Parts: sequence; C-alpha cells; structure tokens
Amino acid sequence: MNTIFVVGIGPGAYEKMTIEAARVLSDCDVIIGYTVYVDLVREHFPEKEFLTTPMRKEVDRCRLAFEEAAKGKRVAMICSGDAGVYGMAGLMFELSDAWPETEVKVIPGVTAATGGAAVLGAPLIHDFALISLSDLLTPWEKIEKRLLLASEADFVICLYNPGSHKRSDYLEKACTLMMQHKSPSTVCGLVSQIGREGEEYQVITLAELAKTKVDMFTTVFIGNSQTKCINGRMVTPRGYRYE
Amino acid sequence: MNTIFVVGIGPGAYEKMTIEAARVLSDCDVIIGYTVYVDLVREHFPEKEFLTTPMRKEVDRCRLAFEEAAKGKRVAMICSGDAGVYGMAGLMFELSDAWPETEVKVIPGVTAATGGAAVLGAPLIHDFALISLSDLLTPWEKIEKRLLLASEADFVICLYNPGSHKRSDYLEKACTLMMQHKSPSTVCGLVSQIGREGEEYQVITLAELAKTKVDMFTTVFIGNSQTKCINGRMVTPRGYRYE
Repeated sequence: MNTIFVVGIGPGAYEKMTIEAARVLSDCDVIIGYTVYVDLVREHFPEKEFLTTPMRKEVDRCRLAFEEAAKGKRVAMICSGDAGVYGMAGLMFELSDAWPETEVKVIPGVTAATGGAAVLGAPLIHDFALISLSDLLTPWEKIEKRLLLASEADFVICLYNPGSHKRSDYLEKACTLMMQHKSPSTVCGLVSQIGREGEEYQVITLAELAKTKVDMFTTVFIGNSQTKCINGRMVTPRGYRYE
Repeated sequence: MNTIFVVGIGPGAYEKMTIEAARVLSDCDVIIGYTVYVDLVREHFPEKEFLTTPMRKEVDRCRLAFEEAAKGKRVAMICSGDAGVYGMAGLMFELSDAWPETEVKVIPGVTAATGGAAVLGAPLIHDFALISLSDLLTPWEKIEKRLLLASEADFVICLYNPGSHKRSDYLEKACTLMMQHKSPSTVCGLVSQIGREGEEYQVITLAELAKTKVDMFTTVFIGNSQTKCINGRMVTPRGYRYE
C-alpha cells in the first residue's frame, strides 16, 4: 500500500505550516503542486524532487501524483492553505478508485479564512460562511443564492477568489446582494498576501467594500450585525458579558 | 509596548500545531489557558509557568493575561484549534481598551472544521457554513434560523458544540430543521477526539445522524447535495471534470 499525502502548507510563510506538514515534506521523495506553491516551499526542502503543473491542470496534477506513487516514490501533493478547503484533497479521493493500491491521507493546514482573520483581528469568532466567488466550476446563480441566504442568516461571510482581471465586477455584485440583508455600515475587512511579503489589511464598511477593487491574492471578510471595529481591528463578539 | 500572543494550538496533537505557534510558546514566560488545553501542551514546554482558569471563566482568563503582561512577562494565551474561531481572540480585543500599552497578536491554527475534515476525507471542498449549537451565548432562535437558511443555500454545514449532557437533543433538533431543505440521505460525518488519542470517525446519512448521540468532543459535518461517500470517506466535489 502506497500513501500519498495531500498537504496544506498554510497561507505562505514557512512558519505558518504545521509541524506535521513540515515533517511529511521532509520525509517524502517528491513534492507535486501548482508552480506558485512549489516556489513557496522549494528553498526549505532543496534536496527534494519537485514536479509542477500549471493552473487549470488539476486533474493532470492529481494523476501525476498517483503515477509517481505507483513507481514506489513517497509523494506529497501540496496546496496553499488547507488542502480540504477548495483544495486538491477532494479530487484526489474522486480519482482514487483507479488506484486501489494507494491510500490518500490529508494533512490539514491553516486556511486563508483563519490566517486572514488573525491579521484583521478576530472577525470569525461567531458562526460564519465561506463562499468562493469563482464561477469557473460553480454556476453564478448558486453563488448568488448562497450570498443572499448567508446574509439573511446574519453570518459573518468570508469570500475566497473575490476577483480577478476577468471578474473585476464580481465583488461589487456580491456586495450589492449582501446589502439586501446587511447594513451598508457593516464592518468588513480585506487581507492580501496573508503570511507573505507585502501582507496588508484594511478595515472598511460594506458600502466602501462594494467600490473596492481586489485581486486573487485577497481574502474578504464581511461582518455580522454585531461585528465592531476596535482600534482599527475587525472584531466579532462571541457574546461574553463584561463591564 | 507589551505583546500578548493568542495562540491556536490546533486540534490537540503537538504535531498539528504550526511551527510559529510552537516558537511563540517556546519564547514566552507564561502560558495561560483553560485547564484541558494547558494539559495538552504542558509536557512539551515543561520549563514554562502555567496559569489556568476553569471553563466559563473566560473574562477572568483574559484579564489575567493582561495583568501578567503588565508585570513585564511575555504572555501566551492558548486556545484549542484556532483562537479566532469561537476562541479567546475576540474577547481579548474587546477587553484591550483597558490596557492600551499591550498589543494583542493572534497566531492562527488548524481549527476543528479543517482538522476533522482531513480525518473524514474532503467534506469542506466547496462553500460551507460553520455553526455552533451551543445556546449559552446565542439565542436558540438565531441558531435555528442559521441552520434553516444554510440548508436552503445547500452549504456543507459543520457543527461545533453539537451536544453535551444538558443539550442531548440539540443535534436531533438541528437535523430535523436541516431536513426541511436537505435530503435524509445526505452524506454526513462525525469525528471525535480529532488529533488526540481515541480519534474516531463515522460516515452516515442525515437521517441516521438525527438519531446519533454525540459529546462535546465531536465535530459534525453535513454534506451538500453533491457530497458523496467514496470508499467510506466523505467527499464533496469541487466540480472538476474527469472521465
């Protein structure tokens, strides 16, 4: 029985990886991943073999991992953040039927929601919903429905893939939908380059967020009705009483 | 300026802590936390001073951290999982106004949602909502509303605090609500003692989940309409096409 480890490397900085993830990468023969993520870990494991495939070649990347494992190599497939949150872990299990002699094991990591929350303050202290604005694999109508119902339920909402060159107006559309149920003065936060060089954050209102341009390296947080700005940080109360 | 580090230690096993969290604990003078979590890290940092407060004494615990920092000590306050997900990070920012000379810094960790997902397979690959069933600090009506709307939106749902001795019927009530919008055959998962001795998981249907008794060390996952059981693992597809 071979084992492929699907490893979440965290938001980017080596230190934000778990001890387990670092041990698994250190024990393996070959590290497979999307070019950008491989570049983030390469310097820390210089003696390893690295195999990369470009974006949108996810199926090829997963098959490559199974093929390398079938050769008897110890394989780690890396994802940024957590491999189980919009990551490769799902596709690896979906494809695993064709390789019954290989076991898939997921090593969890810090996802952008919690990594970004730590930079902003404490926006995710209460119930929250995580929604990707990318409509590459999900119909936009389904995304709209989730934005509306999550807003009506007064969830804190964290948005992944909030924008790109091709989808420059998606965040504005999402904010307009959320304002059907959330106040324009709702406290919101943006974090870009979490745990990497150039990390930046901003705390603004939902009305301001609707007019903000973001790139694919940004994670967006929309507060619930209780979320506050405390000394420039975004904080959602859990409900503890104190005077 | 003093700094208090609010550190997520992950699900429990030392290896599931980030490298950064371990460094911060190793660099501090005093580690403060709820008794159970302090016991999880004590053996790895035997030379540190440890201060504990019992459950439901969260405000006291946070004030203790500020008081210790004011004495000039380097303070780490620990939480299980991620300190920013139902953790102490929020309350620390809320109380920080009274200690303007102290900065609060959050060190993210692996929360039970992603830690448990890795054990089950890949249930959180698509949009999901995280809901706590504890009504200690949140009115039950608000929890009900969130369960209903999140189900209507076809989110994968992850439940924290799904039950205890006092709240033994809450999970059943929650499942009945979710079945207003989700099929009784929806694939669900349970993980208990994530990353600790006695870790166990189960993949069952939503109808079966409604009849299951759980304790406070269990995290519960309810799939979306696409979630599958593949070789006994719970897997939510992202939507990649393959033949």
